[in-house]
Amino acid sequence: MPELRKDPIIGRWVIIATERAKRPDQFAGQVQQLPAEKPCPFCEGRESQTPPEIYAIRPKATAPNGPGWELRVVPSIAPFLGVEGELWRKGKGLYDLMNGIGAHEIIIETNQHIYDMADLSEEQISKVITCYIDRIVDLERDKRFKYVLIFKNHGWIAGGGRVRHSRSQLIATPVNPKRVKEELVGARQYYDYHERCVFCDLIKQEIDLKDRVILDIDGFIAITPFAARFPFEVWILPKKHCADITCLNMPARLELGRIMKKVLAKLKKGLNDPSYNYVIHTAPFRREKAGYWKSIDDDYHWHIEIMPSLTRVAGFEWGTGFYICPLPPEDAAKFLRGVEV
Amino acid sequence: MPELRKDPIIGRWVIIATERAKRPDQFAGQVQQLPAEKPCPFCEGRESQTPPEIYAIRPKATAPNGPGWELRVVPSIAPFLGVEGELWRKGKGLYDLMNGIGAHEIIIETNQHIYDMADLSEEQISKVITCYIDRIVDLERDKRFKYVLIFKNHGWIAGGGRVRHSRSQLIATPVNPKRVKEELVGARQYYDYHERCVFCDLIKQEIDLKDRVILDIDGFIAITPFAARFPFEVWILPKKHCADITCLNMPARLELGRIMKKVLAKLKKGLNDPSYNYVIHTAPFRREKAGYWKSIDDDYHWHIEIMPSLTRVAGFEWGTGFYICPLPPEDAAKFLRGVEV
Repeated sequence: MPELRKDPIIGRWVIIATERAKRPDQFAGQVQQLPAEKPCPFCEGRESQTPPEIYAIRPKATAPNGPGWELRVVPSIAPFLGVEGELWRKGKGLYDLMNGIGAHEIIIETNQHIYDMADLSEEQISKVITCYIDRIVDLERDKRFKYVLIFKNHGWIAGGGRVRHSRSQLIATPVNPKRVKEELVGARQYYDYHERCVFCDLIKQEIDLKDRVILDIDGFIAITPFAARFPFEVWILPKKHCADITCLNMPARLELGRIMKKVLAKLKKGLNDPSYNYVIHTAPFRREKAGYWKSIDDDYHWHIEIMPSLTRVAGFEWGTGFYICPLPPEDAAKFLRGVEV
Repeated sequence: MPELRKDPIIGRWVIIATERAKRPDQFAGQVQQLPAEKPCPFCEGRESQTPPEIYAIRPKATAPNGPGWELRVVPSIAPFLGVEGELWRKGKGLYDLMNGIGAHEIIIETNQHIYDMADLSEEQISKVITCYIDRIVDLERDKRFKYVLIFKNHGWIAGGGRVRHSRSQLIATPVNPKRVKEELVGARQYYDYHERCVFCDLIKQEIDLKDRVILDIDGFIAITPFAARFPFEVWILPKKHCADITCLNMPARLELGRIMKKVLAKLKKGLNDPSYNYVIHTAPFRREKAGYWKSIDDDYHWHIEIMPSLTRVAGFEWGTGFYICPLPPEDAAKFLRGVEV
């Protein structure tokens, strides 16, 4: 009998469709005919092929937009939002709109032509985290923005495009994304009732139950969520309560690099290099204005959600908000625990 | 400059990414290498290949599960939810779950081996509508269910599978789907403030503005929504206020069949037979218990949402609730108005 499970944070029900369940290893191995690789503009020595860098980790002796860097951030050449201009809002009859002010940046995670973040070193991944934090802190100064979304599209199916060089993206937006707002509101409701953080409670329960834990190392835990939307959906959470990723100190960034590399390597090896997306959910800017100021630091908890692209059913979920996950998250966690990396 | 637009019902912001915009005709023609077609179990004469029918439109002289029918409904052979048993709910620490009680039915829309609903006659489509209504009315009697979701997955990319015979699906659920709940709450808030239905206001405004109207015939209107999530997203709405699709009388069902055929034919011809999903959003069962009883009939408005599968960006949207639509809905409407069918 399938099970209906409710996400404890935002209250979304999902169907864990055990009747249709495949074995975990059946999700692997669907290698796709990919379009030809494009020449890479992101490798060291090709700095002139990108717009000028906004940020870089590079020795002081090297010049901006020249070689010698370890990590670069450049504006997107096809931005979703434009960075110049005043933000305006207006009504149009019953509709509300604003001009598309925002920032859209590409985080080039390595100077080597490496495709999957799983193949970067732990130290290099921790530098990517440092870059995320530095960019969030910098963009928070811009009063037009309310949020910075950090995400990764890896692989063709996940929207990763035809350039096979490991990178993430960032979009600064003048509104809070719906999913983040839902989490803030849901976590706040839980806190109002229990006076505890829902994520902290969830982490404690997962550590007790063990069956959805993939890795529990240092200050971080990687789990498959109870009400998973997708097979092999993985969340990485800091075990210590923290609303905002920018609070992470250097040792914790290294620990995060370590667990991210391990999780991504397990997905890569166990599922035959799947496409995936991840998003970072962290507290929004200037929280006091968002109506959550009172104890935001107590009721929200930043985390990373990783979503491998292994199933096709999409439009139905888009149209209904009803997700059907064909693999129990306990089976996914057990499988991933068993993948040696 | 791209635009940020807010859906007036559920308050979701989308980016209409004009900078990345392609011409409407550039979305067409991505013909895919499809897996081989499977032998069809849904054609007339192969009734023994499906589970026994739950419902059929067939002359009285014909026997159930034999030939002679015009339309059949059968249980899914791989159901998402199981129909037998008592519904239970329980907690598991901080988690909530229930057993997966529900119904999952396949609506075989024709006895002919026709793939796209666009190729059925208007009369046949109106019979499909009648079947939807009859099944909703029947399933409402089962007190375990709160909602019936009717949807269609057409084409490989949209989850339509390898059998190319026109069909829709229904899932009766013991919970209200999240998207439907959001619409009910949003429409209620609008009604509380304005004492008018947000959908009725939206229809009036679209008819005045004209630029997002694809078709306005008889009692129905087909538009591209102001805050479209996907290129060529189309909504079909009854112009007369009505919360519940089951209220549609016979002449109105024929009118709906007419506009659905025209819209689907325009998508098929204009975009080279794209995969698509549609969902029907109608009022939930036993509304008085859902907390919306007071004037549900005044504040909600049933409609159909059609989502062609033309873009790939998915995980990002899943993770953030932030949609980026690479085609202004005004351009999509203009293009579809121009497709002769």
